[in-house]
Amino acid sequence: MKKIMLIVLDGLGDRPNDVLGNMTALQAAFRPNLNFISSKGMNGLMHPISPGIRAGSDTSHLSLIGYDPEKVYTGRGPFEAMGLGMEVKAGDIAFRANFASRDDSMRILDRRAGRITSGTAELARALNMEIGGVKFMVKEGVEHRAALVMHGTGLSPNVTDSDPHEAGKKVSSVSATKPDGEATASLINKFLVESRKILDEIDVNHDRIREGLPPANELLLRGAGIAPKLEPFSDRYNMKGACVVGIPMISGICSLAGITPLSVAGVTGRVDTDYRGKIKGAIEALKTYDYVLVNVKAPDIAGHDGDPILKRDVIEKIDDAVGQLIPLAEDTVICITGDHSTPCSMKDHSGDPVPIVFYSDGIIRDRTAQFDEISAQQSALRLKSGDVMQYLLQLSERSEKYGA
Amino acid sequence: MKKIMLIVLDGLGDRPNDVLGNMTALQAAFRPNLNFISSKGMNGLMHPISPGIRAGSDTSHLSLIGYDPEKVYTGRGPFEAMGLGMEVKAGDIAFRANFASRDDSMRILDRRAGRITSGTAELARALNMEIGGVKFMVKEGVEHRAALVMHGTGLSPNVTDSDPHEAGKKVSSVSATKPDGEATASLINKFLVESRKILDEIDVNHDRIREGLPPANELLLRGAGIAPKLEPFSDRYNMKGACVVGIPMISGICSLAGITPLSVAGVTGRVDTDYRGKIKGAIEALKTYDYVLVNVKAPDIAGHDGDPILKRDVIEKIDDAVGQLIPLAEDTVICITGDHSTPCSMKDHSGDPVPIVFYSDGIIRDRTAQFDEISAQQSALRLKSGDVMQYLLQLSERSEKYGA
Repeated sequence: MKKIMLIVLDGLGDRPNDVLGNMTALQAAFRPNLNFISSKGMNGLMHPISPGIRAGSDTSHLSLIGYDPEKVYTGRGPFEAMGLGMEVKAGDIAFRANFASRDDSMRILDRRAGRITSGTAELARALNMEIGGVKFMVKEGVEHRAALVMHGTGLSPNVTDSDPHEAGKKVSSVSATKPDGEATASLINKFLVESRKILDEIDVNHDRIREGLPPANELLLRGAGIAPKLEPFSDRYNMKGACVVGIPMISGICSLAGITPLSVAGVTGRVDTDYRGKIKGAIEALKTYDYVLVNVKAPDIAGHDGDPILKRDVIEKIDDAVGQLIPLAEDTVICITGDHSTPCSMKDHSGDPVPIVFYSDGIIRDRTAQFDEISAQQSALRLKSGDVMQYLLQLSERSEKYGA
Repeated sequence: MKKIMLIVLDGLGDRPNDVLGNMTALQAAFRPNLNFISSKGMNGLMHPISPGIRAGSDTSHLSLIGYDPEKVYTGRGPFEAMGLGMEVKAGDIAFRANFASRDDSMRILDRRAGRITSGTAELARALNMEIGGVKFMVKEGVEHRAALVMHGTGLSPNVTDSDPHEAGKKVSSVSATKPDGEATASLINKFLVESRKILDEIDVNHDRIREGLPPANELLLRGAGIAPKLEPFSDRYNMKGACVVGIPMISGICSLAGITPLSVAGVTGRVDTDYRGKIKGAIEALKTYDYVLVNVKAPDIAGHDGDPILKRDVIEKIDDAVGQLIPLAEDTVICITGDHSTPCSMKDHSGDPVPIVFYSDGIIRDRTAQFDEISAQQSALRLKSGDVMQYLLQLSERSEKYGA
């Protein structure tokens, strides 16, 4: 039985870039370690979720760690909230939220409160409260964005948005979409009444009005979802799992599955992360854990920025760091892939497949000898993200036979 | 319309073997006929069940002959019983069983009765009985292993194990896991009471006690399953099917589907089988049947034995035999593949894909010219075992259009 190291290079996949001589960032990078692993390993193209699907990091990671997002991904709310660093537990209800401006007749004047840039932390803090035994927690995001998490018992995600989704319309009161949502809807409406009183009185808004800015006097809610109760990873796969990730949404997902997020000094979830330290920390974790997931966010950031040079450069740093994995091949199955493509030319996630490589002593290899989107096209495997866990389990001799 | 010949080389897939210069057994074998067929055919990599799944021969054959094991494979019991050569009919309930030792307080002393090696045929025979119109049939397997089949009407697999799964614990009485299992559970408990009386009195156990060996005085039951009622192959695919297989489990599965097992002289299901005779018999059967399945067990046996030389050698004998198929290409679709990989280095089934080739005059070919795990990596197709029947049907011009 071997241990498992899964390295997810966030947003790895790319498309041709003029500035890189029509190569992808991965093709253009000096990557001797990735190429060595590719040449000694079993390569493939991996479709996040399914061919053509533009996967998010949340859905793709869920499926990479062995949970079917079709069954457990019940709405963006809980995952957005985790992405803001909020603690979200199984059964919690979460909404995506906007700070918005409304008039006294409850009509929305601006769904983004003039794209408010400051004071939202104070606004969010002021809205934390408890009603009927249920905790309401609000946290600010970028500009007008925020999330609301409800923590309590017997909550249901089957409620409508309060967001009318269009300026000029009135704020909706929240209602149940199924009978089990009635108690939750009623609690949310009470919260909204309370929150309006607080937002009308708060200094931030008095200041904004004085400065001629639209007040952030309404928290618009949309996309209710319940944080799924995932079967514990340790029960499901009989492995102790840990993760080394710099972004709260992914560590939140891992936590829901019972995969322990570890803190490693210097890991930031940004392009200035300590790449070597991150991989070193993950290798250290393999002493205690059977399965370690690493997420390196930097390629995705460079992709969203539309910066092929930066994307190439961070991949070169990653390559330098993953060299440390090579001596592990005797008793570890190493898998390197992406969670989706973030082509620099698109500045967003595409539905293109990403290269994947499995590397461990004694496994069957293919003839692919370079790790990039184009070389992977001649590789052996065509997988979906949901196949990766079973493939890792079989290579590490951890799965049961299906049948006799 | 063409006929179909499906050759399943059991446990065909392999991983690199030191002793074969890091080749797989298939790569190392002199295989001019398989390579000829590959060069004239359409090649692919086939994942038994799904990528990474460590398929059993039972689940894989079910899916190769066109039945979804997710729907029809309800537990190992019936398939293990077939594997022992027992007749199992749709609706029968079967358990995997152990001959075990218990004390007078019903506590299990040894779940394997000292890995009993002789006398189990006599023990099993003594336990055949009829209770309440239901026939109980027991058959011994290797060492302490056995199977129990219940044949009657209205039986349910929704019952617990009597096996406490741990020495030192007491034998459980069987209970229903769903209301429809109550009558069945009650019958099994009666059978167990009767069987204890018989096993306490039988000579085999008196002899064992006298020799200081633990008596085999309890039949522990686990893994109840119902033999599925499969839609007849002839209705489902409008073909008359036959099979030439040497192992009872696969002929049992074929029988459930209405694919007729044929006996061919010299076919043993072992490495000493008459390879040429087997293929000759299958070709003969094509005169009467539309679809003939051949299973050659030998590569799997060599894989489980961890013997790459033997695996290579039996593949060379298979190659010699399949040469007889080449003249059939005009009016037959020939498919050669494995049901799973049994790497010699692992001595068990892995979740690696296996090569597959379809060969018939006039079909589209790919550029693959050798039949092995590595050459297949550059081939055209990536299939799952559940795709194979539809692919055969279309090539033989036997399937309906899906749409207009």
